[in-house]
Amino acid sequence: MEIKSYIENNKKKFLNELFDLIRIPSISAVKEYKGSVREAAEFLKNQFENIGLDNCEICETNGHPIVYAEKIKDANLPTVLIYGHYDVQPVDPIELWDSDPFEPIIKKTDIHPEGAIFARGSCDDKGQMYMHLKAIEVLNNTGGVPCNIKFMIEGEEEIGSDNLEIFVKENKEKLKSDIILVSDTGMIDKKTPSITTGLRGLAYLEVELTGPNRDLHSGHYGGSVANPINSLAKMISSLHDENNKVTIPGFYDKVIEYSDEEREKDKIPFSLEEFKNSLEIDEVHGEHSFNTLERRSIRPCLDVNGIWGGYTDEGSKTVIPSKAFAKISMRLVSNQNWKEISKLFTEHMKNITPAGMRIKISEHHGGEPYITSTDSKAYRAASQAYLSVFNKEPYALKDGGSIPIIAQFEKELGVKTILMGFGLDSDAIHSPNEHFGLSNFFNGIETITNFYNFYSK
Amino acid sequence: MEIKSYIENNKKKFLNELFDLIRIPSISAVKEYKGSVREAAEFLKNQFENIGLDNCEICETNGHPIVYAEKIKDANLPTVLIYGHYDVQPVDPIELWDSDPFEPIIKKTDIHPEGAIFARGSCDDKGQMYMHLKAIEVLNNTGGVPCNIKFMIEGEEEIGSDNLEIFVKENKEKLKSDIILVSDTGMIDKKTPSITTGLRGLAYLEVELTGPNRDLHSGHYGGSVANPINSLAKMISSLHDENNKVTIPGFYDKVIEYSDEEREKDKIPFSLEEFKNSLEIDEVHGEHSFNTLERRSIRPCLDVNGIWGGYTDEGSKTVIPSKAFAKISMRLVSNQNWKEISKLFTEHMKNITPAGMRIKISEHHGGEPYITSTDSKAYRAASQAYLSVFNKEPYALKDGGSIPIIAQFEKELGVKTILMGFGLDSDAIHSPNEHFGLSNFFNGIETITNFYNFYSK
Repeated sequence: MEIKSYIENNKKKFLNELFDLIRIPSISAVKEYKGSVREAAEFLKNQFENIGLDNCEICETNGHPIVYAEKIKDANLPTVLIYGHYDVQPVDPIELWDSDPFEPIIKKTDIHPEGAIFARGSCDDKGQMYMHLKAIEVLNNTGGVPCNIKFMIEGEEEIGSDNLEIFVKENKEKLKSDIILVSDTGMIDKKTPSITTGLRGLAYLEVELTGPNRDLHSGHYGGSVANPINSLAKMISSLHDENNKVTIPGFYDKVIEYSDEEREKDKIPFSLEEFKNSLEIDEVHGEHSFNTLERRSIRPCLDVNGIWGGYTDEGSKTVIPSKAFAKISMRLVSNQNWKEISKLFTEHMKNITPAGMRIKISEHHGGEPYITSTDSKAYRAASQAYLSVFNKEPYALKDGGSIPIIAQFEKELGVKTILMGFGLDSDAIHSPNEHFGLSNFFNGIETITNFYNFYSK
Repeated sequence: MEIKSYIENNKKKFLNELFDLIRIPSISAVKEYKGSVREAAEFLKNQFENIGLDNCEICETNGHPIVYAEKIKDANLPTVLIYGHYDVQPVDPIELWDSDPFEPIIKKTDIHPEGAIFARGSCDDKGQMYMHLKAIEVLNNTGGVPCNIKFMIEGEEEIGSDNLEIFVKENKEKLKSDIILVSDTGMIDKKTPSITTGLRGLAYLEVELTGPNRDLHSGHYGGSVANPINSLAKMISSLHDENNKVTIPGFYDKVIEYSDEEREKDKIPFSLEEFKNSLEIDEVHGEHSFNTLERRSIRPCLDVNGIWGGYTDEGSKTVIPSKAFAKISMRLVSNQNWKEISKLFTEHMKNITPAGMRIKISEHHGGEPYITSTDSKAYRAASQAYLSVFNKEPYALKDGGSIPIIAQFEKELGVKTILMGFGLDSDAIHSPNEHFGLSNFFNGIETITNFYNFYSK
């Protein structure tokens, strides 16, 4: 009860601090926000100092900095490394936000009747990451942190964590730990906790298709020259077959195929009707012979994330453009390798480029898929922690999203990660009106606090 | 020689006047240029007054104004109505212009060794339209205009001439004439004149495809929800079959199919190699069993003029967008009807919209195709005029572009149009670095001047 009451008494303070962090528009993908990204790092460093951590530092990289802090109590105690990110996704389409993405406000929703924080980063990942700082503060005031802790919070998760990857390679000793703890995933619903035991990988590429050497008048040339937009549409269309399988040769070669028993065993509560209603769609869509949850967890996929070409302003322009572009990403599952898949994609796109067209393909970023077992001390501690707060054992859940660095942690540091997520599908992360339930935030702080106590028993 | 020498002596003045007109950024499609469009109209009205025309007036419409002027010498003389437009296409992609689109400069090119005027509107249609004003000035100074003339210059050609259509319907008496003269088309090459005897029609629509009710995280949802960009690409791809024929049911029903003899007879000089080289493409593309010239003159086609959806800024964003958009136009040939074709397109797109998606289709504008015969007094006068300046009889040429109002003139006024064009394919109209050859401009003035003298004999 000491823990619960400390949290209860400090809710306002916790929120005010989080709001100050959210107000810093740390969009890592857009150059003009570089200063804001650094400001967010400085803010965090101060917060680490405030909760009494040692060696709080801004670690420079070739991109946005990493914030590191630690508290080493005793070399014989286990060490928990906490990872998170302070950068956020871009906010466009800005016109679809009901309020300023960087001025957090609390609004009640059907799912969050107690209120939710609406702002970019409220859930992904400022809100979830900040719970970990507050859990340490709670421990400090309720008997102390029972193990060694290290924090490593980066500013480039939303753009591929390239520099964190280098940092991890170069700081293996510094990052030595027994388990890594991350909150950047979700729960099944507000009352049903889950621990994420799988993440999809990602290969993200950009395609530039060039036809004629200049934009052409569609009257004088229409019908006699291949139009790069039409051609790109045709290429994209051909990337799925009639069963909605990706047609890139070799794409599925390394995908783990689960047996019917395994698929049955992993079933978690899911309402297809609620899913469709929440998106206002009549029909779901995806790879034949898999259900919706499987399509977004144990199966890879390909999506166009952006497309543009020709005249896109108001009114009309009768033009055949010289070029058309697309940003295309693939979500990968074990044991697909993102560099291999990027290569297969690139080769295939070159092969299907129509005569008279030239293609340029560039890699944005990527990451490996990740799976972990439920049979570990840390997993059990996390499970007990959820049970203690939610009165329910968490489900083991494979998530469709990617946190590419998690697979890198295992590869470079030899350490597994426990993904304790508190977000909800409906929180609209990466979308306009992103939000994070107040009770998710406070329950998260309590669950994480309890994790340390169970883990160190 | 009097005509030639008057032009020779006034070249600088003619160019200076044209440059002043070009400097006014009269982009009809973009609201913020509304004032500039009017400024161009006022400029023209002054120029009409300067060449001694009567009843010079700015005729208000629901959109941009029409400039009218006339000189009625004698009710018994034939009347020529000159039509043109003072509005221009938008300039984007602005970064591909080598100079300011609204600050004309003269540069030599391989095709125009004497120099060409580089600017938006230099050819389409300010340069070509202004030749007609200067032809009247030449006549005024070399024996007088031998017939009645009426000028009607509009400011909405690039956005569909909707208000001109109303103006024509409401001013049939005012616009009474024996022939309409227009310079808004091209010649075969700098030394080979042509008169345009056919124009394609146009149906221009915009498609909005909606999937989920908001942008989604492509990790959490990828593979389980239809992505509007992928779906739109598939729909667009399906609009052409393996022979590059448009697949919309009924699309070809009213297309005039020419006999092999007619196709042979209408052959005009054309080098496929030069065409490919000028566009830097390895292969041409289009409807099977038709050659390049036919594909862009006697055959209809469908092109995507713009496409957009998802994240299109620098870097990457892992999003499945809620919506994807395309601007799609079809060039039509006699006897296709643009409203019918727009309806067929709309119905077909609705039919092929995948389950779980909603589609919204809006019409931008359209126009009917047009064909005319070479067997008329005005055509023969135009032909003689070209011969007198270029020492070559002009070819009768069907053009791929659209001037939708030409078909309307015939329908509403019962008057045929002679299309005396002086532009070249390589002039890059509607594209960056639009230009117009100096000799094309001055030869055009001379040819038009001579037309009046032949026509009135």
